[in-house]
Amino acid sequence: MQEFSVIDTYFKQYASQRKDVLAGIGDDAALSIVPAGQALVTTTDTLVSGIHFLADADPHAIAQKAVAVNLSDLAAMGAEPAWISLSLSVPEADEQWLAAFARGLQEITHYYSIQLIGGDTVKGPLSVTITAQGFVPPEQALLRSKAKPGDFVYVTGTLGDAGLGLDFLRGNLSVPDEDNASYILRRLHYPTPRLLVGSSLRRVANACIDISDGLVADLAHILKASNCGATIHVDKLPLSRAMRESVDAEQAAQYALGAGDDYELLFTVNEEQKGKLETALTNTNVVYTCIGQLTGITNKLELRQQNNPVKYAVTGYQHFS
Amino acid sequence: MQEFSVIDTYFKQYASQRKDVLAGIGDDAALSIVPAGQALVTTTDTLVSGIHFLADADPHAIAQKAVAVNLSDLAAMGAEPAWISLSLSVPEADEQWLAAFARGLQEITHYYSIQLIGGDTVKGPLSVTITAQGFVPPEQALLRSKAKPGDFVYVTGTLGDAGLGLDFLRGNLSVPDEDNASYILRRLHYPTPRLLVGSSLRRVANACIDISDGLVADLAHILKASNCGATIHVDKLPLSRAMRESVDAEQAAQYALGAGDDYELLFTVNEEQKGKLETALTNTNVVYTCIGQLTGITNKLELRQQNNPVKYAVTGYQHFS
Repeated sequence: MQEFSVIDTYFKQYASQRKDVLAGIGDDAALSIVPAGQALVTTTDTLVSGIHFLADADPHAIAQKAVAVNLSDLAAMGAEPAWISLSLSVPEADEQWLAAFARGLQEITHYYSIQLIGGDTVKGPLSVTITAQGFVPPEQALLRSKAKPGDFVYVTGTLGDAGLGLDFLRGNLSVPDEDNASYILRRLHYPTPRLLVGSSLRRVANACIDISDGLVADLAHILKASNCGATIHVDKLPLSRAMRESVDAEQAAQYALGAGDDYELLFTVNEEQKGKLETALTNTNVVYTCIGQLTGITNKLELRQQNNPVKYAVTGYQHFS
Repeated sequence: MQEFSVIDTYFKQYASQRKDVLAGIGDDAALSIVPAGQALVTTTDTLVSGIHFLADADPHAIAQKAVAVNLSDLAAMGAEPAWISLSLSVPEADEQWLAAFARGLQEITHYYSIQLIGGDTVKGPLSVTITAQGFVPPEQALLRSKAKPGDFVYVTGTLGDAGLGLDFLRGNLSVPDEDNASYILRRLHYPTPRLLVGSSLRRVANACIDISDGLVADLAHILKASNCGATIHVDKLPLSRAMRESVDAEQAAQYALGAGDDYELLFTVNEEQKGKLETALTNTNVVYTCIGQLTGITNKLELRQQNNPVKYAVTGYQHFS
């Protein structure tokens, strides 16, 4: 397999064109222009076969998820996405696989108006690394470190669905109907980066993170970076119909607290800004839920049910392996 | 192995600090500032164990080479390097290995005053992906496509040394003394990105590429992108003492024409700019050699020896596998 023919055949032809890209695929490096007054936002994430997806996973979904998880990191900074680079390691030049992967990549780059500006294709064990770049006005970037005691804690969407989907895929549980099954598998394989929510939160939220490792684990990052604690109401965690119909309330809470791969946003908003939230997020059509409040007790997370302290052994996100 | 502890323990503490980085490792994404009037230059390269390096290779060298090959791509654009992101896939959390890798990374980022701004550590087969970012004034970027018939063709340094080193490492040849052996292994394991040459060529060279796949293969990229041909004088190819003392003239030419991994720059300069070249490159302390001239016959490469046409079966770059 020649690296060049793979890039030419499958990726170069699909690359959508942005005006801010002066040179994309086909030179030693890409040349692009960051708009005046904006900071560059850069993130890298790798998905490895057998760890982040099963070896026989649909290449269309692998491509889309590899891009989506990176866009989710940009969303968590309040950034607007612009360009991605791809490093693809494949054991062999399987034309059908590559064509489906390229199609997945093309669809998601087209959907978000981003451009694939470069990459490297190597022979090796199957894995996908995406580097995503975007912009945000530097003073409006959403950091993990700017949360304050008293802030209300919000999450978008529903929690735990991807983890439920993973256990369903593994044969560890059954779900009552086809619709629920297809919903949770879609949540697992095709996560939605909350880009519009992220950029809409720019002047509203104090801190933001995307939930990739699970609510408790990712909230802990904000608590640590901001020297805060939190009280989270387990009975307020937003659950999907599929979740409610597939497992009991205790299991649902476990998924919502501990499962990763949901790529919903977790953000904090102070009392003053709370009123702005509805206006800011109306056009995003994304559900959001207040699940608790920050405290001044650094790194202390208190879980409550009907406002009484409650204990959960949160296992955290488990990869495939 | 927890991704976070690996990043915290080995990489975050080593990260040098640049003033243009507003947020580095530790948030969802990095925030940095591209200077006004400069284009962003981005490149990604992956090194896979067993393909680009042997499984038991020195992690210090792996880290340095992974960064160097990316900086070489920036050099070939005439860019100044600024930031790198790392995606590291390792089968296990081997502390000694990670510490040596981190030390190699720290040394090269320190040497080039660049900052590690983010990354992802995953469990998987050993491979390293680096994304490097830098700047160049957009109108001064060195592209593959701007070469013109009549341009003189130059290369930096000496050619074929890394390929010679690889064959020595494989036990396919012997070299006459220890010095030569250590020189060619160093050329293989610790390539030098020609950053100063690249930026010095900004207003001098018409086109530039780095030699990663071999002189003939990489020259072909310029010929294709610029619709040119070339006449290359095989007897003018710059050879190291180690090359001259280890193999005969015909073998040396094979290495110089076909072997990859040298990361020297190949560039073209027109008659008018030729005079500026010496001034431009004096401070770089890098040897450069005129090896031929471009023609108007698209994609036609003619090799000459003592100015007579000569044929070589150039095999091109062979990876470890």
